[in-house]
Amino acid sequence: MSINHEQFLSRAAEQMQQSAIRKMGAVLAGGRDIISFAPGYPAPETFPWDAFAEISAELFASRDGAVLQYGPTRGYKPLLQAIAGIMEHRGVATTPEDLLVTTGSQQGLDLVARVLIDPGDVILVELPSYVGALSAFRNVQATMIGVPQEEDGIDLDALDATWQRLRTEGRRVKFLYVVPNFQNPTGLLIGLDKRRRLLEWAERRDVLIVEDDPYRELYFEDSATESEVRPLKADDSRGRVVYLSSFSKTLAPGYRVAWIAAPPWLASRLEMAKQAEDLLTGSLDQRVIYEACRRGVLDRQLPILRQHYAHKRDVMENALRREIGEGITWPKPKGGFFLWVTLPENINAAQMIARAIEHGVVYVTGDAFYVNGAGHNTLRLSFSAPTPERIETGVARLAATLRDERAALATAAATGSRGAS
Amino acid sequence: MSINHEQFLSRAAEQMQQSAIRKMGAVLAGGRDIISFAPGYPAPETFPWDAFAEISAELFASRDGAVLQYGPTRGYKPLLQAIAGIMEHRGVATTPEDLLVTTGSQQGLDLVARVLIDPGDVILVELPSYVGALSAFRNVQATMIGVPQEEDGIDLDALDATWQRLRTEGRRVKFLYVVPNFQNPTGLLIGLDKRRRLLEWAERRDVLIVEDDPYRELYFEDSATESEVRPLKADDSRGRVVYLSSFSKTLAPGYRVAWIAAPPWLASRLEMAKQAEDLLTGSLDQRVIYEACRRGVLDRQLPILRQHYAHKRDVMENALRREIGEGITWPKPKGGFFLWVTLPENINAAQMIARAIEHGVVYVTGDAFYVNGAGHNTLRLSFSAPTPERIETGVARLAATLRDERAALATAAATGSRGAS
Repeated sequence: MSINHEQFLSRAAEQMQQSAIRKMGAVLAGGRDIISFAPGYPAPETFPWDAFAEISAELFASRDGAVLQYGPTRGYKPLLQAIAGIMEHRGVATTPEDLLVTTGSQQGLDLVARVLIDPGDVILVELPSYVGALSAFRNVQATMIGVPQEEDGIDLDALDATWQRLRTEGRRVKFLYVVPNFQNPTGLLIGLDKRRRLLEWAERRDVLIVEDDPYRELYFEDSATESEVRPLKADDSRGRVVYLSSFSKTLAPGYRVAWIAAPPWLASRLEMAKQAEDLLTGSLDQRVIYEACRRGVLDRQLPILRQHYAHKRDVMENALRREIGEGITWPKPKGGFFLWVTLPENINAAQMIARAIEHGVVYVTGDAFYVNGAGHNTLRLSFSAPTPERIETGVARLAATLRDERAALATAAATGSRGAS
Repeated sequence: MSINHEQFLSRAAEQMQQSAIRKMGAVLAGGRDIISFAPGYPAPETFPWDAFAEISAELFASRDGAVLQYGPTRGYKPLLQAIAGIMEHRGVATTPEDLLVTTGSQQGLDLVARVLIDPGDVILVELPSYVGALSAFRNVQATMIGVPQEEDGIDLDALDATWQRLRTEGRRVKFLYVVPNFQNPTGLLIGLDKRRRLLEWAERRDVLIVEDDPYRELYFEDSATESEVRPLKADDSRGRVVYLSSFSKTLAPGYRVAWIAAPPWLASRLEMAKQAEDLLTGSLDQRVIYEACRRGVLDRQLPILRQHYAHKRDVMENALRREIGEGITWPKPKGGFFLWVTLPENINAAQMIARAIEHGVVYVTGDAFYVNGAGHNTLRLSFSAPTPERIETGVARLAATLRDERAALATAAATGSRGAS
């Protein structure tokens, strides 16, 4: 009997999509010299290789069986204590009941989704928003409604109007997902006053906030201060905020170690969900990350990383101004990995991607970050991974792409048809 | 406003349970000298420490950024090729489209569950069956129906009768979950002829088989041969079998590296599910495991492990016969980590656990492995992790526990009431 595949797939599986970012990864695997501004990879030249080598050698020399054994789902206790210290430094008081180590922040998002969302439940996300989170929410069949952003982050009036409209339709909002610091993909920072009002809003409307904060340590000292990246969670006296952060952007993503801070009633459910999802985060990974915290490796990394990425941001901005100039705009990234470009209204970033690949450069098309079908003339450029020289060359290629695209559009307009693209 | 927690939880989260095995882990954290036969941990004295240390040192020395970077969701390509080689050795021809690296086999089970099961969908499991799989299936709200086992594994008549009864009720079975080799918890091996008939049954009844195979390399040479552990997947010409296996029991579980072999239509969905669940399995973990395969570390481990665990099995069986003898039975484990004890009918393993802890020994109560509420007088003993001396002492403690329990029951029967327990 031949298998009718469709009858075996879950409804969630039917709706699953290949990530736009990871599709770009496949293009790169082709082997041609393509400069990638697509994935938000940290710069490998910043990894603390020697420290990792030394820590690992000592862990193996210890012959401590627990280093390579199964361990508790919540996480390695000394690491949980180190995370509590990091949280305290960020202004957030936690107890052991609040914290859970996760296998990267992607797992954190997935666990939050599974524990909070039933198919059809409504959640709110920023326009645009992080595609990895959207995937996790889509996979539990959430209904995602977008809320526009202003220069200082999410538009509070639009947020409440959306909430009210949904209530009128008899639909309840379970949570709002935000990336307050150097948002992926826009690089925007939510203003401090707005953070306070956002918390008040969540309390008034009885909504949870899922605060995703992977980039907070990467504020650029010329344009942001540590006080500006204060987590919403720091002022969350009522337990409305689920906070996620990670070591992937500050130590290395090859270690899959991140964490969630959540009210205890929720943290215990997240732990049960994790138990069935992957039992535990790798013991060795947790030990190495813990040692990197304890020995000051992480603290020494941070100023280096801030300078490193600020410099790459400068290189990219200068190149964009020099090579393209007119017609494109972007908010200046004050931290993080991303620069969010708005193209002229008549240019479609998804249609232009084939031409970009021909020119040897890739980006992520902005539409992937929008839950409402918008963003056709936007794109995300990551300046984090390529070297400054590659950034310059890549931007020159992007400029050539854009010139060709504009010329093709002009020709098409003159002849009354759009060229194949 | 105080938060009404219940209104935020998903239906899946409401049904999540703490794992029985991991609850026992919490008992151990108490710090007393308790000998644990509860979790199925590999023996840390068998870990190839020197090989791991050497491989890691070389990987760090390489300064190859990809070692600590994000990578493809499917897995590190050379590792996928190494896995294809392992599969070939097991009699299974695979293509790159069939394979997916997972973050431990627990993630594999979870991905399979998410991609195949909608709430209420019916799946079949062995009685008893692996609790970790049951958790993963419960978390997607599967309806699990149990099928009894015989000495040579699952009872095929009962299996088909169950299928037919369900069909009469208008319910379709999506898959059957089996652990054919040294099953967790019973240690049973499905007979070769039965494997063939199981495949025929799946084809006839249009059901998938999820074959979970973490223990196959650990056959004990005095009682099983390699030909007896041939995967169902090896004879699966129609793409009915989803096969899971792992390096956790043969190299180390502190590295979270396992794999799935599935028909391509399913493997691509599993990949998408993984992408949203944790992006990728740790790059460094995959590199180390790959090097351990390439350099022959894995191949050298296997005969050592077979002997190591066979010896511990002998120690446990001899101690059980000597210390307890009458009244308890178990099928002789021909491989794997577990010995499955049936107590006298009037003894309840869950009620006896407090007394066992007093005596300084723990096990997993058998009821946790049954989806139909049975198994009150059964328990699972893992002989894998404790040293032979600890196994002897632990069994003596178990014997004392049982003597006390029987005495208490006799007293209660004489006085017409059951003692507190």
